[in-house]
Amino acid sequence: MERHINGVKSCESQALVAEPEKCSPAGSFDVNSSTADEQVAESFIRQAMEIIVDEAVKKATNVQEKVCEWHSPEQLKKLLDLELRDGGEAESEILQRCRDAIRYSVKTSHPRFFNQLYAGMEPYSMVASFIAEAVKTNLYTYEVAPVFTLMEDAVLRKMIKVIGWEEGGDGIFNPGGSLSNMYAVNLARYRYCPDFKEVGMFSAPRLVILTSQECHYSISKGAALMGIGTKNVYTVPTDERGRMIPSALEEKIMLAKSEGAVPFMVNATAGTTVLGAFDPIDEIADICEKHNLWLHVDACWGGAAIMSKKHKHLLKGIHRVDSVAWNPHKMLMASLQCSAFLVRDKTSLLQHCHSARASYLFQQDKFYDVSYDTGDKSVQCSRKPDAFKFWLMWKALGSRELEQRVDRALAMARYLAEEIKKREGFRLVLEPEYANVCFWYLPPSMRNLPESPELWKKLHTVAPVVKQRMMKKGSMMVGYQPLGEKANFFRMVVISPQVSRQDLDFVLDEIHNLGKDL
Amino acid sequence: MERHINGVKSCESQALVAEPEKCSPAGSFDVNSSTADEQVAESFIRQAMEIIVDEAVKKATNVQEKVCEWHSPEQLKKLLDLELRDGGEAESEILQRCRDAIRYSVKTSHPRFFNQLYAGMEPYSMVASFIAEAVKTNLYTYEVAPVFTLMEDAVLRKMIKVIGWEEGGDGIFNPGGSLSNMYAVNLARYRYCPDFKEVGMFSAPRLVILTSQECHYSISKGAALMGIGTKNVYTVPTDERGRMIPSALEEKIMLAKSEGAVPFMVNATAGTTVLGAFDPIDEIADICEKHNLWLHVDACWGGAAIMSKKHKHLLKGIHRVDSVAWNPHKMLMASLQCSAFLVRDKTSLLQHCHSARASYLFQQDKFYDVSYDTGDKSVQCSRKPDAFKFWLMWKALGSRELEQRVDRALAMARYLAEEIKKREGFRLVLEPEYANVCFWYLPPSMRNLPESPELWKKLHTVAPVVKQRMMKKGSMMVGYQPLGEKANFFRMVVISPQVSRQDLDFVLDEIHNLGKDL
Repeated sequence: MERHINGVKSCESQALVAEPEKCSPAGSFDVNSSTADEQVAESFIRQAMEIIVDEAVKKATNVQEKVCEWHSPEQLKKLLDLELRDGGEAESEILQRCRDAIRYSVKTSHPRFFNQLYAGMEPYSMVASFIAEAVKTNLYTYEVAPVFTLMEDAVLRKMIKVIGWEEGGDGIFNPGGSLSNMYAVNLARYRYCPDFKEVGMFSAPRLVILTSQECHYSISKGAALMGIGTKNVYTVPTDERGRMIPSALEEKIMLAKSEGAVPFMVNATAGTTVLGAFDPIDEIADICEKHNLWLHVDACWGGAAIMSKKHKHLLKGIHRVDSVAWNPHKMLMASLQCSAFLVRDKTSLLQHCHSARASYLFQQDKFYDVSYDTGDKSVQCSRKPDAFKFWLMWKALGSRELEQRVDRALAMARYLAEEIKKREGFRLVLEPEYANVCFWYLPPSMRNLPESPELWKKLHTVAPVVKQRMMKKGSMMVGYQPLGEKANFFRMVVISPQVSRQDLDFVLDEIHNLGKDL
Repeated sequence: MERHINGVKSCESQALVAEPEKCSPAGSFDVNSSTADEQVAESFIRQAMEIIVDEAVKKATNVQEKVCEWHSPEQLKKLLDLELRDGGEAESEILQRCRDAIRYSVKTSHPRFFNQLYAGMEPYSMVASFIAEAVKTNLYTYEVAPVFTLMEDAVLRKMIKVIGWEEGGDGIFNPGGSLSNMYAVNLARYRYCPDFKEVGMFSAPRLVILTSQECHYSISKGAALMGIGTKNVYTVPTDERGRMIPSALEEKIMLAKSEGAVPFMVNATAGTTVLGAFDPIDEIADICEKHNLWLHVDACWGGAAIMSKKHKHLLKGIHRVDSVAWNPHKMLMASLQCSAFLVRDKTSLLQHCHSARASYLFQQDKFYDVSYDTGDKSVQCSRKPDAFKFWLMWKALGSRELEQRVDRALAMARYLAEEIKKREGFRLVLEPEYANVCFWYLPPSMRNLPESPELWKKLHTVAPVVKQRMMKKGSMMVGYQPLGEKANFFRMVVISPQVSRQDLDFVLDEIHNLGKDL
């Protein structure tokens, strides 16, 4: 090794900036100078950016193009040539791989993609995500992420203000709402008994989390991960609209207590995944106050409603809760991922609950105010500057345009529901309260059958076939699922401002076209 | 609402593609057509991409430019105008905000950034991260992420092969190595007793994790989060190089057992954060086999050595362990974040341990092989396609160039260590075994003082001042920290192929220049 380091004297006078390969002995490497070629890198990045704009922005959002080009896993493996080899590939080959990666990916920004709780292309947030990737840093300390640390703080403060916590609060962005919900469980547990952090749960009383039967599965996953156990998640029945029944909550609390267990938190959902239901926060808050329980609101999906004067009533009472998970990457369209966890506490609970005080990162003898080193509030070490994506978008649009985005999405859902009621063969599962429009499609052969278990059994098979056909055709993507006793139904969610009435009409027409022979 | 939907008949014949604002009543919004303006979006994205290439790629990697432009949090808040308002801003203002975000961020891709275990600009991985952001999807199902699902599988298989698990294994990419280490704890616990997933740890025997005193703090954070408790992380003493002492490990295991506790896993570290020490995996594996303990290796930092024929001996025995955390975003320079968790198990332990079988996402009546829906292996729901960043980079460079990257980084560390030994006033903390070069700088005023607690107390204050000065000048960024009884010392880590000998000489010269008056 030293041979190369000390032996190649002729390189010593070269410029500091890279002159790659110049002095490098063949077949070896050179430590005298940079071996990176910035010009090659820059040219590659520029070409790739052209491809991204052409294929992943223009083509992907063009309604005339397909939403997806379906291939089975086995076919796609062949098309992609996935194997990683000893030798590298030429620039032109890598650029073709970039094109292929985009080509065979699902176009989630296409105006006919309705498959998940995210959709559409948001240029400001997308650009912010590119900048975050290019700047390449982590949020643990102000030292390495001064801009993003301050932006996260600003966004969190603003979200807290919008929620209505007049005395402020604290928060952190996490990689997904599931983690945010788990933070809530951990904070609630820590408030109940801080000793668990040190001694674990081995001699603890059995702790119980209460949540509705329609809640997101991350509550169960969190209970499993955190040593609480999935059986200690007590599910509270919901009403016909999928909302937690407060009296049933109180019954479950009493049940847990009667068993000698300790209920310590309630998770209310603002915008359930399938039906878009909002648990009645105000009534639940009354019960939590009475029983001294931590109240968390999983508003990952429904949090956006708070931006709208017209729809914020859905979250009535949220100013009273202890913590909130809210994903701006869903209805507000921030780039994936952008998930905030907010906590009303002002006693640094987040810091106390999660800190480990690593001395290599959170030195206390730094020359700046180390309260800006926020990384120890997290269970992560590396953490992405996701807040920046929301910040730039908010700067560009302003609260007013965010509000319009929500109002428009809900108006679209309303339009779709009315259309469904007008059309033969379509049946709403329930009147939408939020942006989720759930409905069955009955092919003509089933329309005159009597309501019976057989009908529902038949109907259950319709959505999967229609889904298969739409994906193979590439015309659109709409999700379906069963729910409790309910047979498979479609769930439409309109988010993107690029979606128009015509797209919604198209969805209904297309479902009929694809399923009318069933 | 319906007024706008049904009332504006004149829009009905318009094209499907956006004609924004055209029919929108003033002060309201329009659902008849798209309200997104694709041309404005495209133009904005193109302009922003120019800024990214100019500022975050070219300027940020130029050695003639500053590494950082230091401002205190209070100053920077003013410069950034962080407040989020009701109204949006014009495109030109947003573009200026993009420039400012880059300008005031630390240039981690600059050849004189040595502050963390990531550094440098990796064009292929950067482009892959842009594509992932633009394509905007989640890894839970093949349906919405066909390309990235297959790529993750291909990368995991390749990493497993490189590790030497001849019978294969399983794995998943996580948002950071901390999460990967927590996955190891959860899997080890699940293997010990799968019932904990359902019933929690309330009646469990006290579980104990064993790890060296130099391990990453995520083991403690994980123990706290997972209900095991930080006190049940037993730290094993290390030798003079920071490596776990196997006999001491066995003593701690016996101690835990004698207390009636249940040791269930050992965490060995391959490349400790500060010293870059490698625990002796082979000897630890013998002990784990004897006591039937899960052996996890936190190779987040040191895993890269396995790519090098010359240095893979550092990880000798890794083919015997149960799980590995390995972050290609560190020495291999994949974009942040890129963290793999790998497990030797072939019985779907990852799936069984984490699954919640959400029926809205993981429908079993899909038309394709649902074993490709890998999302339920994760504790997350949304999950980023981080593997793609490593895949594209590996395709472009090939294993051979990845190997050279490692070999070069370690040769640079070797060069730096030799220089430090030659220079007056510099003292190595220990001979580097990996890429970490730890050293003290003694200003002339301290060089002739006798070795005494007073000297070390004085020396402890040097690094923070030098650090402050380098950041305010913006000439470079090098980390420092104390370690156990050791006074503050610098830790240099060379990663980027853009770094040359001259940069390392500069670092030593600059430390002297900045600290010689102390």
